[in-house]
Amino acid sequence: MHTGFVWLMSSRALQLSSLFARSEMLSTSDYNSIISINLFVALLLACIVIGHLVEETRWMNASITALLIGLCTGVVILLLSGGKSSHVLVFSEEIFFIYLLPPIIFNAGFQVKKKQFFRNFITIMLFGALGTLISFCIISLGSMQFFKKLDVGSLDVGDYLAIGAIFAATDSVCTLLVLNQDETPLLYSLVFGEGVVNDATSVVLFKAIQSFDLTHIDARIPLRFIANLLYLFFTSTFLGIITGLISAYIIKRLYFGRHSTNREVALMMLMAYLSYMLAELFYLSGILTVFFCGIVMSHYTWHNVTESSRVTTKHVFATLSFLAETFIFLYVGMDALDIEKWRFVSSSPGTSVAVSSILLGLVMAGRAAFVFPISFLTNLTKKSPTEKINFRKQIIIWWAGLMRGAVSMALAYNQFTRAGHTQLLGNAIMITSTISVVLFSTVVFGLLTKPLIRFLLPPRKHFPVSRTLSSSDLGSPKSITLPLLDNQQGSESAFCCYEFALHDGVGCPSRLCMLLNSPSHMVHYYWRKFDDNFMRPVFGGRGFVSFVPGSTTEPSATNLPE
Amino acid sequence: MHTGFVWLMSSRALQLSSLFARSEMLSTSDYNSIISINLFVALLLACIVIGHLVEETRWMNASITALLIGLCTGVVILLLSGGKSSHVLVFSEEIFFIYLLPPIIFNAGFQVKKKQFFRNFITIMLFGALGTLISFCIISLGSMQFFKKLDVGSLDVGDYLAIGAIFAATDSVCTLLVLNQDETPLLYSLVFGEGVVNDATSVVLFKAIQSFDLTHIDARIPLRFIANLLYLFFTSTFLGIITGLISAYIIKRLYFGRHSTNREVALMMLMAYLSYMLAELFYLSGILTVFFCGIVMSHYTWHNVTESSRVTTKHVFATLSFLAETFIFLYVGMDALDIEKWRFVSSSPGTSVAVSSILLGLVMAGRAAFVFPISFLTNLTKKSPTEKINFRKQIIIWWAGLMRGAVSMALAYNQFTRAGHTQLLGNAIMITSTISVVLFSTVVFGLLTKPLIRFLLPPRKHFPVSRTLSSSDLGSPKSITLPLLDNQQGSESAFCCYEFALHDGVGCPSRLCMLLNSPSHMVHYYWRKFDDNFMRPVFGGRGFVSFVPGSTTEPSATNLPE
Repeated sequence: MHTGFVWLMSSRALQLSSLFARSEMLSTSDYNSIISINLFVALLLACIVIGHLVEETRWMNASITALLIGLCTGVVILLLSGGKSSHVLVFSEEIFFIYLLPPIIFNAGFQVKKKQFFRNFITIMLFGALGTLISFCIISLGSMQFFKKLDVGSLDVGDYLAIGAIFAATDSVCTLLVLNQDETPLLYSLVFGEGVVNDATSVVLFKAIQSFDLTHIDARIPLRFIANLLYLFFTSTFLGIITGLISAYIIKRLYFGRHSTNREVALMMLMAYLSYMLAELFYLSGILTVFFCGIVMSHYTWHNVTESSRVTTKHVFATLSFLAETFIFLYVGMDALDIEKWRFVSSSPGTSVAVSSILLGLVMAGRAAFVFPISFLTNLTKKSPTEKINFRKQIIIWWAGLMRGAVSMALAYNQFTRAGHTQLLGNAIMITSTISVVLFSTVVFGLLTKPLIRFLLPPRKHFPVSRTLSSSDLGSPKSITLPLLDNQQGSESAFCCYEFALHDGVGCPSRLCMLLNSPSHMVHYYWRKFDDNFMRPVFGGRGFVSFVPGSTTEPSATNLPE
Repeated sequence: MHTGFVWLMSSRALQLSSLFARSEMLSTSDYNSIISINLFVALLLACIVIGHLVEETRWMNASITALLIGLCTGVVILLLSGGKSSHVLVFSEEIFFIYLLPPIIFNAGFQVKKKQFFRNFITIMLFGALGTLISFCIISLGSMQFFKKLDVGSLDVGDYLAIGAIFAATDSVCTLLVLNQDETPLLYSLVFGEGVVNDATSVVLFKAIQSFDLTHIDARIPLRFIANLLYLFFTSTFLGIITGLISAYIIKRLYFGRHSTNREVALMMLMAYLSYMLAELFYLSGILTVFFCGIVMSHYTWHNVTESSRVTTKHVFATLSFLAETFIFLYVGMDALDIEKWRFVSSSPGTSVAVSSILLGLVMAGRAAFVFPISFLTNLTKKSPTEKINFRKQIIIWWAGLMRGAVSMALAYNQFTRAGHTQLLGNAIMITSTISVVLFSTVVFGLLTKPLIRFLLPPRKHFPVSRTLSSSDLGSPKSITLPLLDNQQGSESAFCCYEFALHDGVGCPSRLCMLLNSPSHMVHYYWRKFDDNFMRPVFGGRGFVSFVPGSTTEPSATNLPE
């Protein structure tokens, strides 16, 4: 059974089981896991229903709902067990990294607007890789500076560097829920793309800190580290692309739809998961791999399957991602009340509050230190004012990346619970401070994000577009046509005059306006040619089989397959 | 981590990890679980692709493919580890009962042809409950008789009764793959319906044997047992129906589709799983509960959600069920080569073969002892010759239920590995004999089933119907329109003149031909009235909102939601 699931309320469980003790078939640990699964499924259902009910409000979002429900459940269990249940639920990094994170990141890659993502590729990489490094340095050096004055137990250089890596990891899950892809496509792709690269960078950083020998630091360490980062980035991306292409090739060649859509859906799910697990097997970044696998699958594989498989995969990946997100927030919320950790800290509440506040301050400063300079640099390369990141957008980018989430939790647990369960004061303080920062940033910053975006970017000219796309009355057509629309934007005729083409599907012919724009569009043009001439004949893809150039909507997308 | 997943090839894993030992982040057990997940996902993919390729052949089916791939992998690992890896993989009943069985049984209830199922309800109950009891008695008494002459170690009365329960459990998973719902609807519903009730009965039997004090047997035990069985049957069914209705009510009232299909799909998945886990929590039969939950959900909930949710749930439940089935066969195949068990038995191969043969013989005799008498009794109550179960069909029913599968394995492990790992000769022999019977019946009987059905029931008059339903060229419309058609058969106008209505949608007006048929149709008629007047206004259901009586196909089923 999942170790993290193991419900340690043995006293409670025995009381319950004595009520129904008519069978000896299930052992106590089995029965405990049944209780915990029941509780978790019921809580997830509560999160879905309550999240649906609070969706209308301006302040709340689904992640905060789940976090609060988790906290409340923790309180109820703590009261029921009379303060005895020290470990309500142990947060397990394994469950997080092996089961919960892959569907979220894969779905992000699968549903991301590829055009926007690749157009801003360099900016995203600067934010994600360079920005994370800057943030890491500031948080590490800052904590080293400030914590020495406080009584925080014994922390060595490795611990301070780990703190930098832990708090440099933004919560891409929370970002996904806060920003809207249709309303603010540029911001979404920047912040979310950064989040994925940032996750990968901080995990790599963290691994590097744990594996490097820090007793004799020399000048070669940063170089080796950067080489390591580049190696990981390219191999992980390559693995993701290869896995995605293999899935496209298999489905195209074997023509699975002839027999059953089940096989197609199962194959896509398994290949996506395999890409992540292979990356973990080879010590690469599974996050990057599964993200690029998702992009390749949505570009090739998704178009090779039958219509019902398309609808199914589209929604099932989104559903799994949604469930994993909800589960994570519920989990973090419930874990926060583990009394064992707080007991150590309770003797010095002032220190704990000081440490959390310092960390929060460093997180904000560290993020400000790269968002504004990198935005400034990026703006220098852009010619048209619409492509520039204005100051209001810079504030939103800065703000949306302030939240810390499950990645920080998982890394903190890994670093500070290795030698026993938070028996050292320093470790206990770092764990509780991480929880405090995660809870505070998610709840307080999260609650303020929607009003902030509304204040800084009042709904203006982009609103009519988003309304036609995501009219709340129609419900599903939005979600069905999204990837189609996505590709439509990416198709040759519409791609350069994006705003215009979105409204009536007619763009200017191609070369002229491409030259008027930036050279990155030239790259896109040659990629298109390569894609059409070499990739699509082998791996399939949208409309490769039955593509009608004049039509803006593909006939098979809304009807039954021919 | 899953205990069953824990890959006990530590030597092998360490060799691999030393190759890539660049990070200390993941502990050895984590890395081992990553290896095992990779292997399992890759094997599942192999099963899907190879299962697709052998689908055309007359002999093979997907379950045998998975079983053989599992066996081959076991052999390869055994050879690679030089015969050292005693536990290649430990079969875990927990994984089976908590994760793999629920999606299979739920999907069966969700996709079953309700009309056929309820029409043959009494026959199914006779086969499933009474038949399993007969089979249990014959196998228990027979093994008690025969095994005393063989040297099989110390087995007490409880063990013999457990053997009866273990081998009375038919493999409903395998049955699903062997028979075709469209080609032989009557046989499918009988054999599969029996399988579900049989699973429940044998698990209940097994639990009862383990909990009853068998030292002083008196006449009250059978009575208490039957009372227990009836209690479990009714409470489990009731719980399943209630959970299904709650899901229908929530989705109808809150109108989830307005916001997202993800929530609808997640809610259906979670409610289905919750029904199973609640039944396990209250020591009921999760199998029966989740089966009836599936039936209720396909009748009410499924019609309350948006079109894209309908397509998604339909295929995702089928996909999960398919994956769980494949996983089980792979699992059983790999587990079969656990050398530890065979080492004990290898000293007396004759005994082991004799025990397996006797058990196989008893399984066949036990099944024959109830299939033919009950069929005879059922035929006495039927008037029309088409409804009678002729001798050829009786042979197929007898044959299709001979396979033993994962339920038998799980129960055998539970009974015979309680005191240490098969250290007693009697326990070791029973475990290996169970594996032998499962492998032999699945592979040999499974391979012979398709040819047998073809021989006994050459494709005749029912073929045109099945061809219109399941034309292999169209692929997905079959799977999309199935539940619709299913309900169509059940609708008032078409229900009594089923064969006729299926072709042109016009039936005779209702009362007259209902009286010409059996009184069970009268029950159906009053159920319909009750359903339309009381249930549907509250819980929704097909066409309750926009039902056009004259139309045979519902408009919203193939188009986008209005």
